[in-house]
Amino acid sequence: MRFRMTPRETGFHDLFAAAADNILTGSKLLLELLGADAEGREEIAERMRAAEHAGDDTTHAVYHQLNSSFITPFDREDIYRLAARLDDIMDFMEEAVDLVVLYRIDELPPGVDQQIQVLNRAAELTAEAMPHLRTMENLTEYWIEVNRLENQADRVHRRLLAHLFTNGAYDAVEIMKLKQIVDVLEEAADAFEQVANTVESIVVKES
Amino acid sequence: MRFRMTPRETGFHDLFAAAADNILTGSKLLLELLGADAEGREEIAERMRAAEHAGDDTTHAVYHQLNSSFITPFDREDIYRLAARLDDIMDFMEEAVDLVVLYRIDELPPGVDQQIQVLNRAAELTAEAMPHLRTMENLTEYWIEVNRLENQADRVHRRLLAHLFTNGAYDAVEIMKLKQIVDVLEEAADAFEQVANTVESIVVKES
Amino acid sequence: MRFRMTPRETGFHDLFAAAADNILTGSKLLLELLGADAEGREEIAERMRAAEHAGDDTTHAVYHQLNSSFITPFDREDIYRLAARLDDIMDFMEEAVDLVVLYRIDELPPGVDQQIQVLNRAAELTAEAMPHLRTMENLTEYWIEVNRLENQADRVHRRLLAHLFTNGAYDAVEIMKLKQIVDVLEEAADAFEQVANTVESIVVKES
Repeated sequence: MRFRMTPRETGFHDLFAAAADNILTGSKLLLELLGADAEGREEIAERMRAAEHAGDDTTHAVYHQLNSSFITPFDREDIYRLAARLDDIMDFMEEAVDLVVLYRIDELPPGVDQQIQVLNRAAELTAEAMPHLRTMENLTEYWIEVNRLENQADRVHRRLLAHLFTNGAYDAVEIMKLKQIVDVLEEAADAFEQVANTVESIVVKES
Repeated sequence: MRFRMTPRETGFHDLFAAAADNILTGSKLLLELLGADAEGREEIAERMRAAEHAGDDTTHAVYHQLNSSFITPFDREDIYRLAARLDDIMDFMEEAVDLVVLYRIDELPPGVDQQIQVLNRAAELTAEAMPHLRTMENLTEYWIEVNRLENQADRVHRRLLAHLFTNGAYDAVEIMKLKQIVDVLEEAADAFEQVANTVESIVVKES
Repeated sequence: MRFRMTPRETGFHDLFAAAADNILTGSKLLLELLGADAEGREEIAERMRAAEHAGDDTTHAVYHQLNSSFITPFDREDIYRLAARLDDIMDFMEEAVDLVVLYRIDELPPGVDQQIQVLNRAAELTAEAMPHLRTMENLTEYWIEVNRLENQADRVHRRLLAHLFTNGAYDAVEIMKLKQIVDVLEEAADAFEQVANTVESIVVKES
């Protein structure tokens, strides 16, 4: 009979993996949004809300486990930060979809598709990375790549702002609506980077 | 003669209770704002600024006590977070009132009254909850209810945004001004939830 | 032969001093921006981007050192917070310059020069203060003065918003662009205050 060496590590890892899988689901809904008509968008917003609620439950489970555990697999503050930033990603993605529906956006400006593709790539990498927290191996590539993606998202975002404000195709009210949406998508990209930085921090401390 | 068992708990509890009472004062000023004319608003803004200064003093007293105490009644990070988020609530409420005066808002859009009523209810619950940190009892209702209120605030906020942008009653500059005000009120609601989450975290650790 | 008494303090202090010096460079670029023509602005934005990259490297070096050090000169959370908030200052200053170029701003509204002068003064004080973290002496003046500067920045910022929205000189799209720039400069002022509060927290704990 072999004893499990690290019972204390159970729970948190599964919850972080679940949160990241849920985010991947959300980022695929963003991709679907790009080609959807008005009716399709409503239905995507509904599924996004469900994903966001599932994310809230996972976040809450992490906090509960954190507060009731005497021993944790990594620093308490890192666990807290990781859960909070994963939750932020989901919130921002849900907000973006909801705003598209709420503001009855006709057409998303060129560049939003690139923002969403970057988010989708970051979501894939994050979902692949979370299970590696168990062994703390093969995570360097992940955080370097997510940092690179965030820089890319930042450039796309600033080009989008310049496009909205200076090409003369939009009136002021349209600019406001679209700016809010592209800003929220940029916040999602930032939150992916913060997740990656927290993972880096966890790994370096253990090494 | 009985000895007080937990002398270390004095100070912080009184400061958090004072911060929450001050927030309740602020939320009542928001309610007053709803029916006030231009002159009344100026006077409310003045009293709000005074409340915000009082809040700053309390926050600073918590930080000072935290930094100079060797033993604290709960986790240092939780104390820091609780004080910082209580301070945020007051700042957002003060900012909202100041913007109404600064932008010479004629009429607040329908729905702002609901935002303010939710904030007022959250302030009442928070002021009732703080004294319970001493015994850590009877706090579950509080944080569940504040989380529910924040969800309600979120729905009211999004309906307000849809109203501002899509009903055609406002020009772009008016939308910008009003949006900033309703966004700040929503940030206050978020901060109440973060206070409640921190309280939950403190209680679960102790249980 | 004398032994160095506090070898553990090396590294972090030099990194924080480097971050603050870099911020001072950034704030001087903001001052240069005030009098620059379109071509000059592009060149200033380029140098600002370089400063921001240098800042990123310093922040990353702090995190790396923090995660790989068993003993640190102050609380780990304070080190993390100090590095993160210094990084924020640089990011906000870089963003402000980039937006001026991106939005092809013709003329900055009166009051932006005061915002930038306040930031420059805060940068000077921060750069002077960082080397004092080694001895923890002569820092009281610094954080009191930076808090005073932030209050001043706040007043300038609100006056600027009132000017943009109520003097009738700007159309809605111009207001949006200029508001984003003055908001980012205000965020930089807030971040200076958060750096000062973190320094206060470090010093009080050690006293």
